[in-house]
Amino acid sequence: MSEPTIGELGEFGLIELITADLPETPAVVIGPGDDAAGVTLESPVLVTTDVLVENVHFRRAWSTGADLGRKAIAVNVADIEAMGGRAVAVTLALSAPPDTTVAWAREFAAGVRAECAAAGVALAGGDITGAGELVVSVTALGVTDGRAPVRRNGCRVGDVVAVRGRLGWAAAGLVVLGRGFRSPRVVVEAQRAPEVPYGAGAEAAEAGATAMIDVSDGLLADLGHLARASGVTIDVTAGAFEIPEPLQAVAAATGTDPLRLVLTGGEDHALAATFPAPDAVPDGWLVVGTVRAGDPAVLVDGEPWPDEDRGWKHF
Amino acid sequence: MSEPTIGELGEFGLIELITADLPETPAVVIGPGDDAAGVTLESPVLVTTDVLVENVHFRRAWSTGADLGRKAIAVNVADIEAMGGRAVAVTLALSAPPDTTVAWAREFAAGVRAECAAAGVALAGGDITGAGELVVSVTALGVTDGRAPVRRNGCRVGDVVAVRGRLGWAAAGLVVLGRGFRSPRVVVEAQRAPEVPYGAGAEAAEAGATAMIDVSDGLLADLGHLARASGVTIDVTAGAFEIPEPLQAVAAATGTDPLRLVLTGGEDHALAATFPAPDAVPDGWLVVGTVRAGDPAVLVDGEPWPDEDRGWKHF
Repeated sequence: MSEPTIGELGEFGLIELITADLPETPAVVIGPGDDAAGVTLESPVLVTTDVLVENVHFRRAWSTGADLGRKAIAVNVADIEAMGGRAVAVTLALSAPPDTTVAWAREFAAGVRAECAAAGVALAGGDITGAGELVVSVTALGVTDGRAPVRRNGCRVGDVVAVRGRLGWAAAGLVVLGRGFRSPRVVVEAQRAPEVPYGAGAEAAEAGATAMIDVSDGLLADLGHLARASGVTIDVTAGAFEIPEPLQAVAAATGTDPLRLVLTGGEDHALAATFPAPDAVPDGWLVVGTVRAGDPAVLVDGEPWPDEDRGWKHF
Repeated sequence: MSEPTIGELGEFGLIELITADLPETPAVVIGPGDDAAGVTLESPVLVTTDVLVENVHFRRAWSTGADLGRKAIAVNVADIEAMGGRAVAVTLALSAPPDTTVAWAREFAAGVRAECAAAGVALAGGDITGAGELVVSVTALGVTDGRAPVRRNGCRVGDVVAVRGRLGWAAAGLVVLGRGFRSPRVVVEAQRAPEVPYGAGAEAAEAGATAMIDVSDGLLADLGHLARASGVTIDVTAGAFEIPEPLQAVAAATGTDPLRLVLTGGEDHALAATFPAPDAVPDGWLVVGTVRAGDPAVLVDGEPWPDEDRGWKHF
């Protein structure tokens, strides 16, 4: 007997499955089930949308439904964090083939709920449609609690560059999975869903961060966005990074350069920010470089990094 | 020589193409190009997400890029209208096969811009990714300008039911296109992108609408949502509808019941609302029924409508 599918369950059954037992939050004054949700938010309202597409951003053979649900929420909340904001609510659109199993959808919904709980956000609404392949589109709404949003264009000459969160873990997981292995488990899990340092964005803003970005494409690529937006040169110090043990293991086993994983690996959704001085950098952040006058560029120990390694390609 | 593709153009080139010449609006304090957008919005902030998927909601053989761009914005703004709200900003996520032509993307962007201008909304941000098939996900943000949002659950016994906008036009277009024809052109165009009665939702709210919904699945199906949410019976008067000439033509040429098109055809994104009395109904709305005490149901002239015709199936 074949497993029940979401095509059999139907749109409204699937909506019920996903919205069952949603925690209520006071900010969401109208939740799922109307034409639009209503959310109490103080301006400026931060809004961001990130989409995960099957076989582009994830593979069902490598990720469970729960992994995908967690990742879809996490990558969007990370963008709100990167503005120095606090995410309040998300909408979720799931486009899925009708033969997707109900069991998968149930796992996906559990992952969504778990990550919403971890991030402190409410699922306010969304959309469900059929599709030829899985596509998950999330929009996150957030607030700045009275602080100015931290933009990409605020780096000043003399600032220090610091990071918070994992770098290279998801990329190491991809290397491992791509060769048919499932361990080290920590990097495989990091590939399936990131560990976003929730709250760190607001802390950085509070501490006076001058610019900030979510590291989704790879540290050098994303620092490049800061450098271009701010019109500065960012110089990263290779020696600042301690290579974590699992990355050393993956690098040794696969003949990969562990520093390359750290500097160019995407999908960990760490935060990279600039601060006016080393003593402004909050606890838990690692100082990894400096902001200098010069053409918009990112250097490693004063030298350009080979171009072919600059991060994630979206096509 | 083959046409340039978005895969060759790359993510950032495509973002530039879509965000070129965006009109600036004072509400959008941070526009595209940072981790999140920043928008000034008064609470309650209305938020809705609707996704259009290739071969589910549109076909590239039938719709141009411009049609799809217009439709993606319109169907989302319609959901804000249906809350009695005014849409302020949208985010747009485009997932597209790398071999999509740049010419198509240019048309799509023009359609997005045109409909944003018609609806008075700003494109605040978004995402671009590769995919196996085209998926467009839009989130619209809106405000109520001090009015209470108009929910689905507010119908009261004795209310009148009224509609504003087209009914059955898009369905007639689908019938025509499905048989390989391209005329009457007005219904084919209605299928490709709806004509949403922008501003009518706020007018209805101002006039005291007790409940409202966007007619996306078909009038009877969507009135069913009002009936269930409000715990009432809605009785529609078949004779209230004047069948427009193009629908008469399609019905005659294809052996279709024109009333069926009007009552069950989806995708026109008209508004259906209930008002306390006939004299509360604003100009431009057509009174088509009444709200009665009874089990949640939608009747036509006091009788159930055959079930197989109740509207759009999402899987």
